[in-house]
Amino acid sequence: MSMNKELVEPTMGKENGNVVVLDFWASPYAMRTKIALREKGVEFEVQEEDLWNKSELLLKSNPVHKKVPVLIHNNTSIPESLVQVQYIDETWTEAASFFPTDPQSRATARFWTDFADKTISFEGGKKIWGNKKGEEQEKGKKEFIESLKILEAELGDKSYFGGETFGYVDIALVPFYSWFYALEKCGDFSVEAECPNIVAWGKRCVERNSVAASLPESEKVYQQVLKLRQIFGVE
Amino acid sequence: MSMNKELVEPTMGKENGNVVVLDFWASPYAMRTKIALREKGVEFEVQEEDLWNKSELLLKSNPVHKKVPVLIHNNTSIPESLVQVQYIDETWTEAASFFPTDPQSRATARFWTDFADKTISFEGGKKIWGNKKGEEQEKGKKEFIESLKILEAELGDKSYFGGETFGYVDIALVPFYSWFYALEKCGDFSVEAECPNIVAWGKRCVERNSVAASLPESEKVYQQVLKLRQIFGVE
Repeated sequence: MSMNKELVEPTMGKENGNVVVLDFWASPYAMRTKIALREKGVEFEVQEEDLWNKSELLLKSNPVHKKVPVLIHNNTSIPESLVQVQYIDETWTEAASFFPTDPQSRATARFWTDFADKTISFEGGKKIWGNKKGEEQEKGKKEFIESLKILEAELGDKSYFGGETFGYVDIALVPFYSWFYALEKCGDFSVEAECPNIVAWGKRCVERNSVAASLPESEKVYQQVLKLRQIFGVE
Repeated sequence: MSMNKELVEPTMGKENGNVVVLDFWASPYAMRTKIALREKGVEFEVQEEDLWNKSELLLKSNPVHKKVPVLIHNNTSIPESLVQVQYIDETWTEAASFFPTDPQSRATARFWTDFADKTISFEGGKKIWGNKKGEEQEKGKKEFIESLKILEAELGDKSYFGGETFGYVDIALVPFYSWFYALEKCGDFSVEAECPNIVAWGKRCVERNSVAASLPESEKVYQQVLKLRQIFGVE
């Protein structure tokens, strides 16, 4: 299941029809899709959305959720980031799979991705940045740190969640690493002090071209979060 | 992807080691797992849990969520019903897969299962049965019916969500069909009046042995819901 990015030439998208991602640069969910495409060496076009004035294409291609990211491939639109990551894995099979082969390890990967998705989420983070200092924010921090510690325990001293190979859980979780700095600044805490292995894992993931190219600078995310705090009336 | 229950002898569990489901009879999530095992013709043992006094085995085998169902196979425990259904599909491959083969149809199945899982859920239903008549219950009914209508539109006049073949979306959603009567009684509405195709689909699914053997009687679920209303102080 090794994913040597050097071996995969970014030409598969062209061979397999046009690939477009309806994107918002700070969306951790959209980052998953871009990482997955880059891991597979698929060329794609990014169409940046204004989330306060969504395009007709976004509304038409994701009528149920009306959310980014949407993956458009050969004029078929696929919503929902984890559905997209699995679709990408099953469509571009020339590159290594994001999943191990045995059913038990696959179940483990799905379990932890589901756990990460439900806890280390935009909504989870919003309990920290979306509140002023006080009881609600403390509750949000506590939940966030507790969940991250469960993931830290699962990671242990492995390189990636699946072992030596970057895979499904890593793709699903690492986008949130780019939001840690903003959460730390808003919540006045240190993720590294609480979960040193998770931070070391995040740094390791960012060494991959696919992740580095898909994650924005932490400072830029923080500035975006400050804007969100104004929009949501936090400050 | 046809699943002819007659062709699958219930012996595969024995050949492949011991299979146990930590169960609660009224749990729609546990019903998914039992349906999946029965579709594959896998013999399994059911261990009924008292959810107000959970067994050591349950706490040990699902330490993160501490919830039923847990699937135990060859002394390995797998929590989370949808993870289990996929594990069952990938482990007992002699019987037909719950998924179609092309990536696009697989993505469609995953998308609708995720949608159903997030909307037609225990928590979604609780907004109806867990409230007295009034504003909160009306809100819960409205959300439930709106989501079910989206699923009704997706189903259209197909036999099952994937077309002619009973599959992943059907397995994930049909357990909630056994709760419709209880929701109707508590919320004073008719699912059939709102979503006739969904009710026809539910009846069609119950004609399958796997579903019939896994879904409890609607009246029994209603009596359980009345008990829950007492426990939660609704009446």
